[in-house]
This record gives sequence, structure tokens and C-alpha cells, in this order.
Amino acid sequence: MNRAIYSASHINDMEQRYRAEFINSLSGFKSANLVGTQSRDGQQNLAIVSSVVHIGANPPLLGMIMRPHTVQRDTLENIKDTGVYTLNNVTSSMTRAAHQTSARYAQNESEFAAVGLTPEASTAVAAPYVAESTICMSLEVQDIQFIPINRTELVIGQIVEVILPEKSIDKTGYIDIEQCDSISISGLVSYHLTKRIARYGYAKPDQELINLHNSEGETE
Amino acid sequence: MNRAIYSASHINDMEQRYRAEFINSLSGFKSANLVGTQSRDGQQNLAIVSSVVHIGANPPLLGMIMRPHTVQRDTLENIKDTGVYTLNNVTSSMTRAAHQTSARYAQNESEFAAVGLTPEASTAVAAPYVAESTICMSLEVQDIQFIPINRTELVIGQIVEVILPEKSIDKTGYIDIEQCDSISISGLVSYHLTKRIARYGYAKPDQELINLHNSEGETE
Repeated sequence: MNRAIYSASHINDMEQRYRAEFINSLSGFKSANLVGTQSRDGQQNLAIVSSVVHIGANPPLLGMIMRPHTVQRDTLENIKDTGVYTLNNVTSSMTRAAHQTSARYAQNESEFAAVGLTPEASTAVAAPYVAESTICMSLEVQDIQFIPINRTELVIGQIVEVILPEKSIDKTGYIDIEQCDSISISGLVSYHLTKRIARYGYAKPDQELINLHNSEGETE
Repeated sequence: MNRAIYSASHINDMEQRYRAEFINSLSGFKSANLVGTQSRDGQQNLAIVSSVVHIGANPPLLGMIMRPHTVQRDTLENIKDTGVYTLNNVTSSMTRAAHQTSARYAQNESEFAAVGLTPEASTAVAAPYVAESTICMSLEVQDIQFIPINRTELVIGQIVEVILPEKSIDKTGYIDIEQCDSISISGLVSYHLTKRIARYGYAKPDQELINLHNSEGETE
């Protein structure tokens, strides 16, 4: 396998869009979520994000990296104004509509209508769910941390409601997001189905891991 | 499809491990990387992380959420002491070894030897690559931001070297990480192969997206 080496100066010299695609591919597979928000006067907004990251389970916190000077501006303003938002999984039948939310629509235009997804009121927060998603969450902002080095912002929200298929949760608390039809993103524009290959127990020194995915019935 | 609703108090009342699995499943599919570090006296350390997130392309920055009071303590200390680390993709043939790095080994024990992976010196930074990985990166710490709400830390590193298969990069800068055998994680212990289903262009209002993955030759 021929491997190429890119130094810091190679990366620095890349054409801007090429570098964006290259660096966005490097972190690995990414989650695909739609952020639902509304402005104080009720204008709804929907935006795809691939930067949602687990912050902690107790309290239940998710983070996402937002760029204030991009198409994400309206979403970020709504989140700051209302203190709430929803996260909704992107399923395999929604990739086109979800990707289309990244187009630069006018501020007074709802991406829901523009891309053909259906808003559904959350009873927990003043922000819309995506009716076509199988996993929907309401979040309340706990903190927004400015990242000075490139002027992005880490939005940290606490999960206050989760709606998902009852049968997707197993006895360990694991949610079978593959069964929920969640998909994954790589780079800026590529969408992927998944296929489970392994499921292990908690790792301990001097104890061999068992792949529960191969043991009949163990992963049900 | 029967859907279950979990409120904040339902989540709060969950048994601790059950809640950890549940909340860790919610963000969606996660990247799988091994962090390579060494202490000032040369002791090597390797730890799996699923929290790497894209921060920005120019400068090229990746973030990762680290828990100082867990098995990640040695990794975080090495990063703070030396200011550098490597990130190495987890491939489908490495999931068992990669998962095993999450066991609590003694500080003077190298996870490389314990799990059967091969350290390879980076020429860019004082930290080991994983020879079995297909995508290896050297990073220099730019910032470590404390997240007060749950006392975790966001480590932000700048990519100073990338080594990867030459043929995996296309003319747009996209790296075909599926072809590089990268895998994805869900929850705490589940590993997934991927299969590309769509690849779109940049989205614009009033312009239909083309799925380049279906156009012959376009994604090669």
C-alpha cells in the first residue's frame, strides 16, 4: 500500500475547498443530525450538523461545534435567543433533504418547507422536531463556549426529552441506531449506511474480550 | 412504529451504566481513533477515543473530549506534558485490540504491547503512531478548554502531519475512509462497517441535488 505523507506546509498550501474536504474527512465517520430551532417570533429553522459529540451521561449532555459566520448563523442565533433546540437523526431515506438544508436559504424561509420535511412541535421545548426522524431529542442550552483559535462555538445542551422506537433499546440501555435507520457522514458530502461487525463487553486487563455480536441471541 | 418518550426525570432515574449506554448511543455514529502518546520519560500509551470532532480546516484543527478522572488520565497527562499526540484510525481488523485499550492498565504498562498493536515513531512529533492503522496523524496541542459543567476537557490539536494511502484521496480532496477500512462506533461497545449510499454536491437553494454516487465514474 503506497502511503503519501502530508506535512503542515503541504496542508497549508492546499486550495481552500480541497483542504476543507481533506480535513473534514480525517476525523473519521460522523454523526448526522438535524438541528430544529425557531426564532422568538416563531420562524422555524432546520440545519444539518455532523459535529454533535457526546459530552457526558450524568447530566446527559451533547455538544456541537457551530460556525457563526456561515449558513449556521440563523440556527445559532435562535439557540442563543430561545435557549433550546432539537436534534433529530438523519435516516437513509432523508439524506437528500437533510443535505439540502445546508443551502443558504433566506432568513424568513423555513428549511422544513424548502426541503420537504415535516415540523412537529416538541412538548418539552419551543423548537420543532422532524416528523420523519426516528430519534428526536429536546435540549436546553447549558453553556456556549467560545473557541478563540478559529472563532467557532461549542454549544452544550442538556437532553430533556427523547422520543425513539421502543424496541430499539436493549436491556443494557444500548439503542440500536442501525435498526433506527440512522446513517453516518464522512467528509462534507458523503453518506453511509452501517453494518454491525462487533459488540464487546467492558474491557479488563488480562481478560479476553468476547464479541457478543457473534454469540447467538446475546445482542438481542 | 411504537415510540417511547423519555423525560428528563426518566433519564435521571436510570441506573448509572444503563444511562451511560443510553446517552452514548444518542449522538449517532461516532469516529473511532486511537490516541498515541508518550510520557516525558518515554513510556508509551494508547487509548481508544470516539469523541474526535472537526473544529476547522484552516488552520487544520481536531478536538476531542477527554475525561481526566477515568482510564484516559494517563493519555491526558502525556498530552499536557509533551504538547503532542497522534491520532490513528481504527480499522475493521483492529476493533478487538482497539477496544481492549480501554481496559485499566497500570501506568507503567504500554497498551501497545498489552493489546498487540505496533508502535511506530512519528518523525513530526514525540508520540507513537499505530503501524496497523491506515490513516495516521500527528497533532500539536493548541488549546485545552475546561468544560465546567461536568469537569471534562476539550483538547484542540493542530494537524502537522498526515500519512494515508495515496489512492484514497480524490480530486476534490475527499478521503475515501471507507476504502481505508475505517469503521464507526455506536454507544460504548458496538463497531460498524459502512457502505456509501449517497454523495452530493454543495447544496444551493432552488437547485436539485445530484447523487454523484449513482453517476458512473463520478465517485472513483
